[in-house]
Amino acid sequence: MPRKSKEEIAALYKQMQEYICKGLEAGDGKGVFKEDAWIREEGGGGQTRIFQEGLIIEKGGVAYSAVYGPTPKKIADKLALESGNFFATGVSIVLHPFSPLVPIIHMNIRYFEMEDGTHWFGGGIDLTPHYIVPLDAAYFHQRLKETCDLFDRTYYPKFKNWADDYFFLKHRQETRGIGGIFYDRLSATSDDQFQEILDFSLALGRLFPEVYSYFMKKNALLPFKSEQKAWQALRRGRYVEFNLVWDAGTKFGLDTNGRTESILMSMPPQAEWAYQHEPQPGSPEAFTQAHLKKGIDWLTYNPC
Amino acid sequence: MPRKSKEEIAALYKQMQEYICKGLEAGDGKGVFKEDAWIREEGGGGQTRIFQEGLIIEKGGVAYSAVYGPTPKKIADKLALESGNFFATGVSIVLHPFSPLVPIIHMNIRYFEMEDGTHWFGGGIDLTPHYIVPLDAAYFHQRLKETCDLFDRTYYPKFKNWADDYFFLKHRQETRGIGGIFYDRLSATSDDQFQEILDFSLALGRLFPEVYSYFMKKNALLPFKSEQKAWQALRRGRYVEFNLVWDAGTKFGLDTNGRTESILMSMPPQAEWAYQHEPQPGSPEAFTQAHLKKGIDWLTYNPC
Repeated sequence: MPRKSKEEIAALYKQMQEYICKGLEAGDGKGVFKEDAWIREEGGGGQTRIFQEGLIIEKGGVAYSAVYGPTPKKIADKLALESGNFFATGVSIVLHPFSPLVPIIHMNIRYFEMEDGTHWFGGGIDLTPHYIVPLDAAYFHQRLKETCDLFDRTYYPKFKNWADDYFFLKHRQETRGIGGIFYDRLSATSDDQFQEILDFSLALGRLFPEVYSYFMKKNALLPFKSEQKAWQALRRGRYVEFNLVWDAGTKFGLDTNGRTESILMSMPPQAEWAYQHEPQPGSPEAFTQAHLKKGIDWLTYNPC
Repeated sequence: MPRKSKEEIAALYKQMQEYICKGLEAGDGKGVFKEDAWIREEGGGGQTRIFQEGLIIEKGGVAYSAVYGPTPKKIADKLALESGNFFATGVSIVLHPFSPLVPIIHMNIRYFEMEDGTHWFGGGIDLTPHYIVPLDAAYFHQRLKETCDLFDRTYYPKFKNWADDYFFLKHRQETRGIGGIFYDRLSATSDDQFQEILDFSLALGRLFPEVYSYFMKKNALLPFKSEQKAWQALRRGRYVEFNLVWDAGTKFGLDTNGRTESILMSMPPQAEWAYQHEPQPGSPEAFTQAHLKKGIDWLTYNPC
C-alpha cells in the first residue's frame, strides 16, 4: 500500500474527531459538542469542539487541527529541524467530569511532517482519577496494553514508562494520575511500517470513547460527598499546575502564538488551592496521594 | 555610612515581614498569620506566614527567606554568573480577598549577592483589581509615584513601564492588572547609593500595608452579586495562568527545587475557566477587560 499523504492523514484524524465526539455524546447521554472553527493566519486551522451542558462531563473538548506553512523559528530550534515548510495535524482531548468519582482523561494523536520528508507520529492516552482505584487502573492499563500488543509487543512497556516520566509534576514529586501511554517521534522506515504506526494511532482513537464510556457508566451516577468534591477541586489544581508548568505542548503553544482558547480547553471548569493540604491518614485521599508515583505496574498491582 | 552586610539586610527584611503582617492583621480585623518555618538543605531557609480565616483576605501569605550556599548551576547559567557562593533574601506577598470588589495585590522586595561582590536589588508592587476603577488605579499609582520620587524621579516612569511589560500574559495579550512598579538588578556603585536603594525597598515595604488597608477599608464591606463572584473566579484563573506560565520567579523556583508550597502560596483559593468567555458589551467586566493594556497612564487617565 502506498504511503498515505499528509492530507489523507488529516482527513482520517478529522473523521476520528467526529467518531469520538459521537461516542462521547452517546456515553454522556445529554451534552452535545459545539464546534468552533478557526483559521491560522500563516496556514491551516482547526475545529475545536467544546462539550456543553453534559450530564457527566462538566467541561471538555475534542480539538482537531491541521496547520502548515513556513516552520516558525522557535519550532525549528526546539525540534532541531532545518527551516522549510511543516505540516502538523492531530486530535487532542481533555474531559473533566462533574463527579469526583469519574476520572479526568486526556488523549492526543498527532502527525508531523517536514517538506524534506522528515516525519513522525506522537500521542497517547492517560487517566487522572481524583480517587485512585487499583481495579479501575488495571482495567485502563489492560485495555491500553491490548491495543498496543496488536501492533508491537514492545509498545506498552515502553510507552507506559514514557507516560510515567512525561506526566510528572517535578515540583510536587508526583505523577498527574495513573499514567497510561505516551509516545513521540515514532517514524517509519518503510511504507508498511508507516501504515502500521498510523493504524496504531487510529486504534487509540477508537479505543478512547469506549474506555471513557466504561468509566462514565461505572461511576457517574454514584452519590458523592462534599468532601469528595473538595478533594476533586484540589486535584484539578494539580492538573492546572501540570498543564501550565510542565506540559511541553501547552507551554510551547502559548509561547509560539498558538490558539490560546483551544490550547487551554484542557483547564478544568474550576480548581482550588490550599496551603499544605494533607489528606487524613488512612483515607481514600491519602491512598490516592500515596499512589501518584512512577513505576507502578497497574496490571498486577495489589495494594493488600 | 558603611555598607550594610547581607545579614543586616536579611534582618531588616525579616523585620519588614513582621511589620507588614501586623499591618495586614489590623487592616483585616479578624485573620491572623500562622508561621511555617522551613530549612533549605543546601543553606538557609525561611518563614512563610499564611493568612488564615480572615474577614477580608481569603487566602494569602507573606513569605520571608534568606538562602545561601553554592550557586546552583541553573541559577548561575540563567543569571550569567560565575560559580561561587550566593546569598539571597527577600519578602514576597500575594493576597487574594474574598470580595470581587477588593483587588488582588502582590509585592516583592529582594536582595541578591555573590561572594565576588556582585549584588543587586529587585522588587515591586502591582495591583490586580477584579474590576478596574480608574480613580482607584490613580490612587495606587500616585502612592507608588510619591514613594519612588522620594528617591529618584526617574524611578516611577521607568519601573511603571517595566511592570507593564513584566505582568503581561502574552498568550492573552493582556496585562495581569493595572500594573504598578517592577525593578530588577538595581546595583550600587557607592555605599551611599547602596543605602539609598535599600531604603527604597524598605519604603515600599512600609507603603504596602497602608495602601492595601486603604483598598480593604474602601470596598470590603460593600455588597456584591454572584455574577461578580463568578467574574472574580475567571480573573483568578488568569492570575494562575500568569504565575504558572510567565512569572519568571515562579517558573524558576519550581524548576530549581525551590520550596513549592511557599512559591505557590500565590495561587488563589479557587479559580475558574470558561471556554471563550466574553463579557457583556458595556458592562464593568467589559470595561475591565478593555483596560488590561500596557501603557495606560493611570495618573492622568480619564475614560470619558
